[in-house]
Amino acid sequence: MEYTAGYYDVAVVGAGHAGCEAALACARLGLKTVVFAINLDSIAMMPCNPSIGGPAKGHLVREIDALGGEMARNTDKTLIQVRMLNTKKGPAVRALRAQADKKAYQFSMKYTLESQENLDIVQGEVVKIITQNKKVKGVVTRTGGVYYANAVILTTGVYLRSRIIIGDVNYSGGPNGLFPANELSGCLLDLGFELGRFKTGTPPRVHKKSVDFSKMIEQPGDEIMIPFSYETEVLNRPQVSCWLTYTTKKTHEIILENLHRAPLYRGDIKGVGPRYCPSIEDKVVRFSDKESHQVFIEPEGLNTNEMYVQGVSTSLPEDVQVMMLRSIKGLENVRLMRPGYAIEYDYVVPTQLHLTLETKEIEGLYMAGQINGTSGYEEAAAQGLIAGINAALKLKDREPLVLKRSDAYIGVLIDDLVTKGTNEPYRMLTSRAEYRLILRNDNADMRLTEIGYKIGLISEERYEKFLKKKKMIEEEIERLRSIKITPTQEVNEELEELGTSPINTPVTLEDLLKRPELDYEKIKVFDKGRPDLPKEIIEQVQVEIAYEGYISRQLKQVEAFKKLENKKIPPDIDYDKIYGLRTEAKQKLKKIRPESIGQASRISGVNPADISILLIYLESEKRKKGKESEE
Amino acid sequence: MEYTAGYYDVAVVGAGHAGCEAALACARLGLKTVVFAINLDSIAMMPCNPSIGGPAKGHLVREIDALGGEMARNTDKTLIQVRMLNTKKGPAVRALRAQADKKAYQFSMKYTLESQENLDIVQGEVVKIITQNKKVKGVVTRTGGVYYANAVILTTGVYLRSRIIIGDVNYSGGPNGLFPANELSGCLLDLGFELGRFKTGTPPRVHKKSVDFSKMIEQPGDEIMIPFSYETEVLNRPQVSCWLTYTTKKTHEIILENLHRAPLYRGDIKGVGPRYCPSIEDKVVRFSDKESHQVFIEPEGLNTNEMYVQGVSTSLPEDVQVMMLRSIKGLENVRLMRPGYAIEYDYVVPTQLHLTLETKEIEGLYMAGQINGTSGYEEAAAQGLIAGINAALKLKDREPLVLKRSDAYIGVLIDDLVTKGTNEPYRMLTSRAEYRLILRNDNADMRLTEIGYKIGLISEERYEKFLKKKKMIEEEIERLRSIKITPTQEVNEELEELGTSPINTPVTLEDLLKRPELDYEKIKVFDKGRPDLPKEIIEQVQVEIAYEGYISRQLKQVEAFKKLENKKIPPDIDYDKIYGLRTEAKQKLKKIRPESIGQASRISGVNPADISILLIYLESEKRKKGKESEE
Repeated sequence: MEYTAGYYDVAVVGAGHAGCEAALACARLGLKTVVFAINLDSIAMMPCNPSIGGPAKGHLVREIDALGGEMARNTDKTLIQVRMLNTKKGPAVRALRAQADKKAYQFSMKYTLESQENLDIVQGEVVKIITQNKKVKGVVTRTGGVYYANAVILTTGVYLRSRIIIGDVNYSGGPNGLFPANELSGCLLDLGFELGRFKTGTPPRVHKKSVDFSKMIEQPGDEIMIPFSYETEVLNRPQVSCWLTYTTKKTHEIILENLHRAPLYRGDIKGVGPRYCPSIEDKVVRFSDKESHQVFIEPEGLNTNEMYVQGVSTSLPEDVQVMMLRSIKGLENVRLMRPGYAIEYDYVVPTQLHLTLETKEIEGLYMAGQINGTSGYEEAAAQGLIAGINAALKLKDREPLVLKRSDAYIGVLIDDLVTKGTNEPYRMLTSRAEYRLILRNDNADMRLTEIGYKIGLISEERYEKFLKKKKMIEEEIERLRSIKITPTQEVNEELEELGTSPINTPVTLEDLLKRPELDYEKIKVFDKGRPDLPKEIIEQVQVEIAYEGYISRQLKQVEAFKKLENKKIPPDIDYDKIYGLRTEAKQKLKKIRPESIGQASRISGVNPADISILLIYLESEKRKKGKESEE
Repeated sequence: MEYTAGYYDVAVVGAGHAGCEAALACARLGLKTVVFAINLDSIAMMPCNPSIGGPAKGHLVREIDALGGEMARNTDKTLIQVRMLNTKKGPAVRALRAQADKKAYQFSMKYTLESQENLDIVQGEVVKIITQNKKVKGVVTRTGGVYYANAVILTTGVYLRSRIIIGDVNYSGGPNGLFPANELSGCLLDLGFELGRFKTGTPPRVHKKSVDFSKMIEQPGDEIMIPFSYETEVLNRPQVSCWLTYTTKKTHEIILENLHRAPLYRGDIKGVGPRYCPSIEDKVVRFSDKESHQVFIEPEGLNTNEMYVQGVSTSLPEDVQVMMLRSIKGLENVRLMRPGYAIEYDYVVPTQLHLTLETKEIEGLYMAGQINGTSGYEEAAAQGLIAGINAALKLKDREPLVLKRSDAYIGVLIDDLVTKGTNEPYRMLTSRAEYRLILRNDNADMRLTEIGYKIGLISEERYEKFLKKKKMIEEEIERLRSIKITPTQEVNEELEELGTSPINTPVTLEDLLKRPELDYEKIKVFDKGRPDLPKEIIEQVQVEIAYEGYISRQLKQVEAFKKLENKKIPPDIDYDKIYGLRTEAKQKLKKIRPESIGQASRISGVNPADISILLIYLESEKRKKGKESEE
């Protein structure tokens, strides 16, 4: 029997990485919020890898932090190892990655939610979304609770009609031995949404004491620990190592010999899997020339002997999993604790969303995370934050937040999903960001803190600190620009010693810093009166100056890009009336309903000629309107 | 497809409180052991109350510890409050109770299992028990793993074909949102076991910040913290409080008005519930004259705001639960986090077990915990330990461990189950133990450490310590017995001051200590040269002397009892041949097949006349055999 359980501004369905961010953002913006989890013990669960960050994903975490989200802070609180990756490569691809203590991460996040004002946490499976005239009105739980809400955010992860597949074993179930959500998909179909089916998977977990680490390469954490969050001032604690090993020829043989028993090749898996996170059977088949693949053995936490076997995600039968594992160097006597599995689930085709993550079909209904066809904790959290912010801004009658592709990886992520859709679980990659020299891991605060502050998720104190940092960077760049070094013998001798060519005319310190042989530390000899600046300021100054050429070129591209992004398409445009537009383009444009010419140009199936026709049409319409208003 | 996953001595199916003890005991006794859990994250889960111990249950925990089990140690490691209950009552009913941090308890126990040599931990649902000629051979998991084992211990808790019931909502599911085990019951039926159906329940969880503690009575922990385990030397940490409140007239009205919607009264619950842990709807109906019931608000852990509402276990519809909670003093604005629920499950009728917890039907198959029809973490752990010990002793060709009713609460528990069976979830109570003055909380080590040591679960070091303690107690009692006080004026003045009568003839210190007005501390004035003894020694000496009359009377009863217990009944006895035995008695004796006259006498439906006939028959058979062997 249904009963009125409460009246809320926002209801968030699911409390994984997307749901947690969405719920916290809404509650922190002063909205009365309720968040549901099928099991409260699975709030912020990490059913797959025990790590957060890495290339592009780490960027997302930094951006979440700069906007006022929680993932970075929670990672800092509970990480047991952290590394800055790609330190020898360019600043665009440098990225932080942390190993989290899974249980600590989970329960720390749960406690943050429990301690948040305006936020109620309810254990319950949402089985129905209430709508009226295409507007969302609330949700209903399996136990009959009707929660009225003006906005509903679906963050259901991989739980929708999920099935677990291990060899020939196949049953209805959520990730990590939890219950699936079997009711909600039907409701979404009834509301008119198009659903798809994806699959993802996870590798086996093995017992630490059965691993021979002497045959592996140790991967310790960084000596100087850099935190994810701009709020974490110091991060210093004992770290644990990960271990690198490799699959062998034997591993590949075992897999190939048993391919007839692999659900992936037997056709038992209907959902499409993630291209950039393939199962080991998929890797062995697709890259048949490779003799070996990397495998990382990662601790699942401080107080457990369970180890995660990164790189061998699989849905092979359990016996093949064991044989396969035991053929990997150092795992000869390994003991399996949990088998790997594939999970198949419903997602909602993301082209049905606005760039705010509100659905086009139902007003006030938002979706974020794996339900939109992505994979990854960080991708989920990023969307959860944006959906939460936009739900809150809408209810407060404020302008929505749409990050551009030139603002943030988050912008790239959402634009890709909404504009292009995805035919496999979407994972963030640095290669997806065309302006990646601007969208760096090191400058997420510079790019986004202002926005987070205006929204109301960044505290005054933190904002002041940010402004101070920004000013220091600007002043230091200005100072380096203003100091001229004249060519004396002494100067040129110093330059020679530093391995760089001498100068003939006066140059600024900025000029010197641009030389690839030099850096901020090295030019100290010419810069006696320099102020004593914190490390992060120096880092920013150095990157901004050293890469100025590339960056300014990219900024110019961004300007051109923004022009197109700012050419808005009226929401009521009738594409059928546009003479000369190809049928395919018309169909796609009608489906996606892009918000700008820029977005329209990225729709696959819409070509530059179509865009020209569209531009001419918009121009003539504008003139007509102008004339009309003149008359 | 099935595959050979491994060869083990013992396989333990389920890793709750029974399974953990069983697995640890076997592994520690040197047997190659594997333990299964449907979800490794639910090892040692506490799906109901966050406390361990209390009257009779606390005794069990102490006994588990004295035998070398883990529950007491793990509780000491993770408790957040501890109290000695009934300190003003007699020593028989004094008992320790601790509030545990649920998650800490769980993950600490899991890590203990993970760190135990000889023990493998496997995530998997056991779906089949392999037998051959009525002997157990191993188990098979859902993912096809065949684990051969010479002994199998079933500790499946409430997971067998379990159903969750909340109002009119009713679905297949295990406790706390986990998967049920739907396969194994069928296998047990095929093996010839008789199954029954029980139900148990749990109350709602509410949010700490929505509770008005100012209207409740604080229940802090004891200032001096006494540990559960004899191994824990010091226990000193900050504690958190519980809170006492009451149901109101309004609460009872709400429940009575909604009884037509209560599954318990609608007939939706087929299983029998626990008499001594009734749901609130049951309490309100059965004790209709009571205007109010106690309700305790207990923290679920240190780092969570979830609070357990002890005393209102319920399967009422969720809306009624909320109304009912909000009518309790201090819960007027309470926010529900998890609804209460009833769970219905299969148990195996325990009269099918030997006193060793091995099944009569299948050799090498043991059962322990809720599968035997009990309720409670402590009852489960106690059985798990005994089943584990007996499986190990059997495989090592050693004598089994059967604790008598006069040895331990554990003996009472198992004898009750096996001899009388149970028609409701069985809970341990002090009133069930006829020798409870001997089976005290304070002397569990004196009663059982010797046994634990002989089995091999008590370390040399701990045993030495125990012997020392025992000797100190004996010596001190001897010393008090040997010191005589002569009646001088000074002595009698002192006695008068202490509020007790003067002496005319010489008395010993022991005599004085027996006086209810005096205690060990008070008689110090007559005992100048007393040694400096630890608190626990003094406590023992005092109880042993003060209650000596009662204790020795009870010890005499025990002697008589043991005579009957030691009168063994040959396992091949043919009751049909016993002339004069009533049909009912015959049927019952044939079903239970008691191992001694003592056990036979406790079978309901077997009366003293039947026992006499049985004794006569056994006597004559003995004589016959004697003659036969003479011939």
